[in-house]
Amino acid sequence: MLYKTLESIGELYAEPMDEAQKRLDSLTKPLGSLGRLEDIVKRLAGITGEIFPCVDKKAVVIMCSDNGVVEEGVSSCPKDVTSKVTKNFFRGITGINAFTKHTGSDIVVVDIGVDDDIDCDGLIQRKIRKGTWNIARGPAMTREEAVKAIEVGISTVEELSKKGINLLGTGEMGVGNTTTSSAVSTLLTNSKVEDMVGRGAGLSDQDLMKKISIVKKAIEVNKPDLNDPIDVLSKVGGFDIAGLAGCFIGAAAYRIPILIDGFISATAALAAVRIEPKVINFIFPSHGSAEPGSKKVLEALGFEPMLNLKMRVGEGTGAALAFHIFDCAVAVYKDMGTFEDASIEQYRPQV
Amino acid sequence: MLYKTLESIGELYAEPMDEAQKRLDSLTKPLGSLGRLEDIVKRLAGITGEIFPCVDKKAVVIMCSDNGVVEEGVSSCPKDVTSKVTKNFFRGITGINAFTKHTGSDIVVVDIGVDDDIDCDGLIQRKIRKGTWNIARGPAMTREEAVKAIEVGISTVEELSKKGINLLGTGEMGVGNTTTSSAVSTLLTNSKVEDMVGRGAGLSDQDLMKKISIVKKAIEVNKPDLNDPIDVLSKVGGFDIAGLAGCFIGAAAYRIPILIDGFISATAALAAVRIEPKVINFIFPSHGSAEPGSKKVLEALGFEPMLNLKMRVGEGTGAALAFHIFDCAVAVYKDMGTFEDASIEQYRPQV
Repeated sequence: MLYKTLESIGELYAEPMDEAQKRLDSLTKPLGSLGRLEDIVKRLAGITGEIFPCVDKKAVVIMCSDNGVVEEGVSSCPKDVTSKVTKNFFRGITGINAFTKHTGSDIVVVDIGVDDDIDCDGLIQRKIRKGTWNIARGPAMTREEAVKAIEVGISTVEELSKKGINLLGTGEMGVGNTTTSSAVSTLLTNSKVEDMVGRGAGLSDQDLMKKISIVKKAIEVNKPDLNDPIDVLSKVGGFDIAGLAGCFIGAAAYRIPILIDGFISATAALAAVRIEPKVINFIFPSHGSAEPGSKKVLEALGFEPMLNLKMRVGEGTGAALAFHIFDCAVAVYKDMGTFEDASIEQYRPQV
Repeated sequence: MLYKTLESIGELYAEPMDEAQKRLDSLTKPLGSLGRLEDIVKRLAGITGEIFPCVDKKAVVIMCSDNGVVEEGVSSCPKDVTSKVTKNFFRGITGINAFTKHTGSDIVVVDIGVDDDIDCDGLIQRKIRKGTWNIARGPAMTREEAVKAIEVGISTVEELSKKGINLLGTGEMGVGNTTTSSAVSTLLTNSKVEDMVGRGAGLSDQDLMKKISIVKKAIEVNKPDLNDPIDVLSKVGGFDIAGLAGCFIGAAAYRIPILIDGFISATAALAAVRIEPKVINFIFPSHGSAEPGSKKVLEALGFEPMLNLKMRVGEGTGAALAFHIFDCAVAVYKDMGTFEDASIEQYRPQV
């Protein structure tokens, strides 16, 4: 199923992008002065094929999973927070609940590997296993499990596509997932481990050093094949990262624009793009996370953050916050007057 | 009136800020992980004195004015665009109309010096004069006119305060106002003219060189007193910049949080802060404009942009776009569960 999906991914539609550019240039403003909002509108047109794209049905997919590596003491956060926060998404008291309520978007919570039996109405139950194995001692999962986790992401997006969702955000909940993301992104960006490891929920200096050594150990023990992103995901990743990589692949296949959130989500996006480079055309950045690795991963994807708020909450909060930028981009493109409407002589740059 | 207003400006209220910090630290998230949203909420509490501040009544004040320096050929945009766009704010077809409609905020358009007779229902008629004099040949205005323009800003904010507006944005419309802003900000930041002059609506290389030489000439001809921001505003500024400086001063006096928009608005904010340093506590940045001087002026204010969208439309569009960040900051602070609500043991950073 993964390989069939990858084959189905197409290019951006050129003609609607040209039409969108023409309309953008006819609006009463200096040429190009809406900056990145113009890029958003054009790319939405290229993704959807619509000259007036719609982003009125939004959802944030949150992949929840536990990570075996937590037993090494890499997080300042107790392990059962993964399960508790996953349940709290349904009690409406998490950060992403506040952000999505305010922006009128859905949240779609997927249990892809929480180490607990959770039974909440609306939870998408796609548990691969109750948490990964400890990457400091061996692979996180088998290759088959990694493919299965990616496919969970793809099928989740397929369902949302059927429901008419036209803008996606990505989020995660999983104690220990900045450790796995550091390992995956170190390999995929060919960086130094030290540059990709941060304090996560709030490690001390000493524990930060330990986290760095654990990530190094995970890479040494597993020796992932740098040229095989699925090998990297299965050996030092997590079910949440693989599931999110599947969301990015699915969004490309079902032609739905999809937003990166923070470090973990960006790492998943990079893995997806390494699996199939065409996926990049369907992905947008949102905020720059305070986790240090985030910047390098976004750079590897060729993205600059749109929001600079130094957030590091996860859960898809940065993506949800950026939805508003898309609403405004589409609104100004649709509602702003043309030079003709405004009886103003077009002022073009003379460069 | 200006000097009475300046005297009335107080400090941030410390107690509500401490209370807000306590609540922020009790929410189920890593300490400080909401990043700059936490700073926003705390400062709103310090400005308003409310532990749960409200930002539900927003307005963008747009100062519209013409600039005599346009006769030197410093803009790629015909001069009558100032008047036409001022009218178009009331036809609902400008950029800021689309942005504010979407965010549910008002726009307040002030004619502080448009070189035309405009009679639109709702326009605030506070014209000082039909455009400033040409700064390349002498002062833009008299000192009395500069003070009067600042007072227009103060009284506009006073009116909005009476109407219960609790979050303000700043915008402008005035062909030639990146030229005047370059002159003012060169002086206030003690920079090189070359670093503060940009292409505005879209100048050619040759015209950019001319704009630089005109700004240099304006500074040479007028020799403004660097230690007297009102002298700087009157000699090389514009009615719009002075009016916006008044809005920042008024917002501080009436304790309303106020957002900078782009380069012109940031220049006005810097002038206001140089007039009375306490004003800074009431000001927030929004986006980073594509005009090169914007970055230096924000730095001089000690601000980093929240949005990085390379916009250069003016009209208050960047400020309006940032309103949503304030809505979300207040929403997450109010609606997110505490560790107690979530039955989660508090995980504090060990640093």
